[in-house]
Amino acid sequence: MYNLLNDLSIIEVSSFVASPTAGLYCAQMGAEVIRVDHTAGGLDYNRYMLTSQGRSLSWENLNRAKKSVALDLQSGEGRELCVELAAKTGQCITNLPERSFLAHAAMAARRADMISLRIMGWHDGRQAMDFTVNAAAGYPLMCGPEDWDPATAPPVNQVLPAWDFITGAYSAFAMLAALHHRGRTGEGSEVRVPLGNVAIGTLANSGTMAEMLYRGADRERLGNAIWGAFGRDFRSRDGSRFMVAALTPKQWNGLVKAFGVDAGIAALEAELGVRFADGDTPRFQHRAALFALFQQAADGFDYADLAARLAAEGCTFERYRTAHEAANDAELVAGNPLFGPSPANPSGFAYPATRSFANLPGREAGDPAPAPYLGQHSEEVLAERLGLSSGAIGKLVDAGTVALSDKNR
Amino acid sequence: MYNLLNDLSIIEVSSFVASPTAGLYCAQMGAEVIRVDHTAGGLDYNRYMLTSQGRSLSWENLNRAKKSVALDLQSGEGRELCVELAAKTGQCITNLPERSFLAHAAMAARRADMISLRIMGWHDGRQAMDFTVNAAAGYPLMCGPEDWDPATAPPVNQVLPAWDFITGAYSAFAMLAALHHRGRTGEGSEVRVPLGNVAIGTLANSGTMAEMLYRGADRERLGNAIWGAFGRDFRSRDGSRFMVAALTPKQWNGLVKAFGVDAGIAALEAELGVRFADGDTPRFQHRAALFALFQQAADGFDYADLAARLAAEGCTFERYRTAHEAANDAELVAGNPLFGPSPANPSGFAYPATRSFANLPGREAGDPAPAPYLGQHSEEVLAERLGLSSGAIGKLVDAGTVALSDKNR
Repeated sequence: MYNLLNDLSIIEVSSFVASPTAGLYCAQMGAEVIRVDHTAGGLDYNRYMLTSQGRSLSWENLNRAKKSVALDLQSGEGRELCVELAAKTGQCITNLPERSFLAHAAMAARRADMISLRIMGWHDGRQAMDFTVNAAAGYPLMCGPEDWDPATAPPVNQVLPAWDFITGAYSAFAMLAALHHRGRTGEGSEVRVPLGNVAIGTLANSGTMAEMLYRGADRERLGNAIWGAFGRDFRSRDGSRFMVAALTPKQWNGLVKAFGVDAGIAALEAELGVRFADGDTPRFQHRAALFALFQQAADGFDYADLAARLAAEGCTFERYRTAHEAANDAELVAGNPLFGPSPANPSGFAYPATRSFANLPGREAGDPAPAPYLGQHSEEVLAERLGLSSGAIGKLVDAGTVALSDKNR
Repeated sequence: MYNLLNDLSIIEVSSFVASPTAGLYCAQMGAEVIRVDHTAGGLDYNRYMLTSQGRSLSWENLNRAKKSVALDLQSGEGRELCVELAAKTGQCITNLPERSFLAHAAMAARRADMISLRIMGWHDGRQAMDFTVNAAAGYPLMCGPEDWDPATAPPVNQVLPAWDFITGAYSAFAMLAALHHRGRTGEGSEVRVPLGNVAIGTLANSGTMAEMLYRGADRERLGNAIWGAFGRDFRSRDGSRFMVAALTPKQWNGLVKAFGVDAGIAALEAELGVRFADGDTPRFQHRAALFALFQQAADGFDYADLAARLAAEGCTFERYRTAHEAANDAELVAGNPLFGPSPANPSGFAYPATRSFANLPGREAGDPAPAPYLGQHSEEVLAERLGLSSGAIGKLVDAGTVALSDKNR
């Protein structure tokens, strides 16, 4: 854990993926992130996959390095404590609706310079999830094999909840932008980040929306090929599938050499009257002929040999792994300083844990911290942040308004 | 454009998607982002799609609201100007390799508190792209129709370069975290964000890596169904495809009511001895039976009628659009305050342009700004930031070290 944010404390009232991700990134940069949940756990507390003891592996990864306070958020008293914690802290990340007890106005009424970051579904308040905004934004109907009939091709959902993760990272950014502004001006901010905006806005920012409008029609289906450049999956003689991409002159020249297709390229160039070294355009336009040539060459190599040749030329390529293979891949995990030793996870299951995606040469990265047990820090946080005595906390626990660690549940 | 970052200036030496995205998000929050490119344009200056005049719609969307300085980055003098601009400015976003003229050490030698944010391929310096890290992380072999034979199923690449966009947002966050730290301590930072870390780290943060290790095997292929909860694509009587998800009790109850499957659910519960209202687990475990029941119900509705029922119950659902449909969808674009009027784009083509994903009630959002012409701000920036006289700049232009606006190229 780096110390870039170690003077910062954030209250997170969260569930599912995007909102906990925003808190996770801040925590992994040193912030104190206090997740406040309902005493029975948030809506995501039992998200798949569960261990045989019923601990969620999803929850314990998305909430790594945070503290946990458990309050009865269905009661007025628990809600009051939650709002007070947010206001005393000064910054809050949440995905509760604006029309909930945790409205920005409720927090700002107690603290004029409050910063709230609210992740929403659509901008107008309608509910949305990664899978539904994805359907709206057009990507699932662009994915899948090239030879599917466009008239009947089904959508292909992406298993990665990409919009959740982009939204989480963007929200961490927007929270720090609001803090930057408050540092200069003293002003608080209400910041709303709709998941739907991230999806349709990315369609626009990538240029894809302009492309559709300019063409006046959808893009042809490309299967696994890269749009507008040279790249696709290929298969080696021994059946390994791998992705190859060449966008720069260096990447292209390396690829031609590694595959040993110089003569074939020259013949194609003569036949077609183009020079493939000229850039993306001829390589993309004549991709069918190029793909056939490269696949034919790949048929002559076992993967290990071809991979060695590609590596020697500095090419950009990667073998497709299953997720289980990736999880056990020494190069990706054990040999990658992103991962540290397993902390004592709530599940009791030990496995490599992430540090922050960013690495800062010369700074101490530290070892990854575990997710908390639900309610593990209720006493500590209520005492330190709200000044409650142990007697007062004991009464709140007896009344069911506050819950302590569920370690021995 | 919001003003949260309007005291901040950033030099961006960038290409492709992740790195320009980091700058874009900062620019849309009010930062001055000065993209420095080679005089002929960066490696991404001609990225598809191109207009008939050869302007890249990709470039003009990813570089919206930035300034542009064009220098001969293959010459010593041009590189010197670029390093000096970065050092004078104090913060730099780049995807150039560490072993390039723009090494952190080169900038920090001129300014001890320099902050550099470098987007890399893999953590060890190997090149990577969105498509290749995606292949490594396991997602393409999890996507695609449920009925494909796992032994022969091909990978399915996602058309959305999700890792680029997550990396871009994360990098904007990490840049602000380093600024926050410098504000408190005066210390600069070298921040490296490898695209590969974002991919394999997200596999871990989502809990999917732990899931694979805990199970000791890959997850079964789910097609378009949501892992661990109730959700899938369905089809209406009149052929519309739509995605539906129900994770919370409220979402589930609404869905049952909107589809009118109360009786079918009760019969299934009696037959199976479960209560679907209990949570994700029974709904996921018996998804095949539930999907059949819901699809049968969907066969009885035209989409407009079913959508009205779903909306009335506050369900989470969305019709699949093609990207061209999405681009022309009034609800998603014209009626969405995310989008503003078209600025004067370099392409001359007019279309809706994004503001920041975040909206801040009570603050002026302003209208979207266009991308610059290449070199449009060379004179202004060299004069203001480096104090060069117009005579000195004229000589640099004559020598080909500096290029001015390519508006009339």
